[in-house]
Amino acid sequence: MAISEFDLIDRFFARAADRSAPGVVAGIGDDCAVLQLEPGERLATSIDTQVQGRHFMFDTPPVHIGYRAVAAAVSDLAAMGAQPRGMTLALTLPKADESWLQGFSEGLHEASRNFGCPLIGGDLTRGPLTITIAVFGALPPDRMLARSGAQPGDQLWVSGSLGDAAAALRVLAGEWPGPAEEAQYLLRRFYSPSPRLALGQQLLEHGATAAIDVSDGLLADVGHIAHASGVRIVVDSKSLPLSDVLFKFPDIKQALTWALTGGDDYELCFCLPAGAIAPTGCARIGKVVRGSGVECDFAIEESRGFRHF
Amino acid sequence: MAISEFDLIDRFFARAADRSAPGVVAGIGDDCAVLQLEPGERLATSIDTQVQGRHFMFDTPPVHIGYRAVAAAVSDLAAMGAQPRGMTLALTLPKADESWLQGFSEGLHEASRNFGCPLIGGDLTRGPLTITIAVFGALPPDRMLARSGAQPGDQLWVSGSLGDAAAALRVLAGEWPGPAEEAQYLLRRFYSPSPRLALGQQLLEHGATAAIDVSDGLLADVGHIAHASGVRIVVDSKSLPLSDVLFKFPDIKQALTWALTGGDDYELCFCLPAGAIAPTGCARIGKVVRGSGVECDFAIEESRGFRHF
Repeated sequence: MAISEFDLIDRFFARAADRSAPGVVAGIGDDCAVLQLEPGERLATSIDTQVQGRHFMFDTPPVHIGYRAVAAAVSDLAAMGAQPRGMTLALTLPKADESWLQGFSEGLHEASRNFGCPLIGGDLTRGPLTITIAVFGALPPDRMLARSGAQPGDQLWVSGSLGDAAAALRVLAGEWPGPAEEAQYLLRRFYSPSPRLALGQQLLEHGATAAIDVSDGLLADVGHIAHASGVRIVVDSKSLPLSDVLFKFPDIKQALTWALTGGDDYELCFCLPAGAIAPTGCARIGKVVRGSGVECDFAIEESRGFRHF
Repeated sequence: MAISEFDLIDRFFARAADRSAPGVVAGIGDDCAVLQLEPGERLATSIDTQVQGRHFMFDTPPVHIGYRAVAAAVSDLAAMGAQPRGMTLALTLPKADESWLQGFSEGLHEASRNFGCPLIGGDLTRGPLTITIAVFGALPPDRMLARSGAQPGDQLWVSGSLGDAAAALRVLAGEWPGPAEEAQYLLRRFYSPSPRLALGQQLLEHGATAAIDVSDGLLADVGHIAHASGVRIVVDSKSLPLSDVLFKFPDIKQALTWALTGGDDYELCFCLPAGAIAPTGCARIGKVVRGSGVECDFAIEESRGFRHF
């Protein structure tokens, strides 16, 4: 017997806790979801697509696909300094595969709980596997972390460590030369990124002049800040924060390349006025000067780190 | 030379008018778009996907694909009584086909202007052609058109005429038996639906108890109201509003089947208390009684009008 999309939504996606989350006036089940922000708050929204064969592989466990899709979308809220309030899911599926849906929805709900971002609506269609998530967050009336405010004299910072997600692709290819616990660490970083929500909200208070999440690769993302702000940004490769695993990696050129060009780390990269101190866990990795473009003392091989369509 | 996604966005999607539309604090080009609602307003949001080969054909002109995708998404705002404030686009494309993008973006921007719904952000990815649009609208603090408020004794109404979009599929198949101007009319209805935005906002004032847009087919959509409201709804097939083209169609059973089960008309179907008068251009087509499910005096052939996954 064919299963209707409504049965699938009821079974795998509609959750009472999401329907009664703070600010949710109407959740799954009507023509629109309805959110109520606090007086004066602004709405931040982003939309993010993951395509099978491009953002994840055919054999990626669905629980990881669900978790990672939510984390990637929520990371854009972190990069604006916004607080998550809800998300909608447009899921295109080749067939109603219940075991796949079970895993996918588990990962999705787990990330939703971890990031405080209830699922409030969606659309289920048939076609090539594609996952699109629209996220909604709240911003205070007078502030946001745009990409466009960096000033010459500012310093460039990044949270956490860089390059782990790129190194994880070696693990997935079965080519990781190190011990199993290193491989496990890298896979965790790849499959379960931690959008820096608390940091983004702190940076609103700390007077950050610009911010972005590292999703295309550090140099590419720094380039977005430079372009939007009309400045040049100098990145110091010797200051890049590497995890213990990458720091110990025998080929340091490879490790730096991962850190500079690997996407999907979902750390925050941001600018602070000179002399300002960043929150704990962030490293100073460069500076903002007059001009345009990005400069780095480490030469990357051609065609890495910039996505062409 | 490869074209970056940023070049494509600049050329085909980023529009100064959208960036400066009322309520738009930040448009295309940052990690999130930012919207400012008026004090007390609530946010209505919906997400809608169109897949090639399912929602449109491989040879559908891209200008129509763009227009229709926006109209279908905005129709969900109409069905809540919300006023459009913006939308984001997640576009997955097999390749950077500039002539396709030119047509698609023209249709999209035209619909965006017609419905007052600026494009404020998006995501461009590579993969099988899939179009997902998230729409954002404003609702007053105390009212919305939910599906769940229909009461026994209410009367069932629908706007405009029904079945034209379904009949247009005959035109597209090259099987329309009537004159060319009929075929042109049906194609216009199919490719350029008019979401009933003004009507939705009027119905908020008129005390409508429930509403939905006709996208799955009248009987299916009335079924959603009946289910959400915990009532039974009786549809009178002799009251269904048909366009002149469908009214003159020689096979009246076929015309009624289109009207009852054809999707994609994007009219509004709604319930009003007995005795209340609907706005001009609406027809009374049934009534709400105690019970559950939908009853119609016209027998539809099996398996039509209900989408199975």
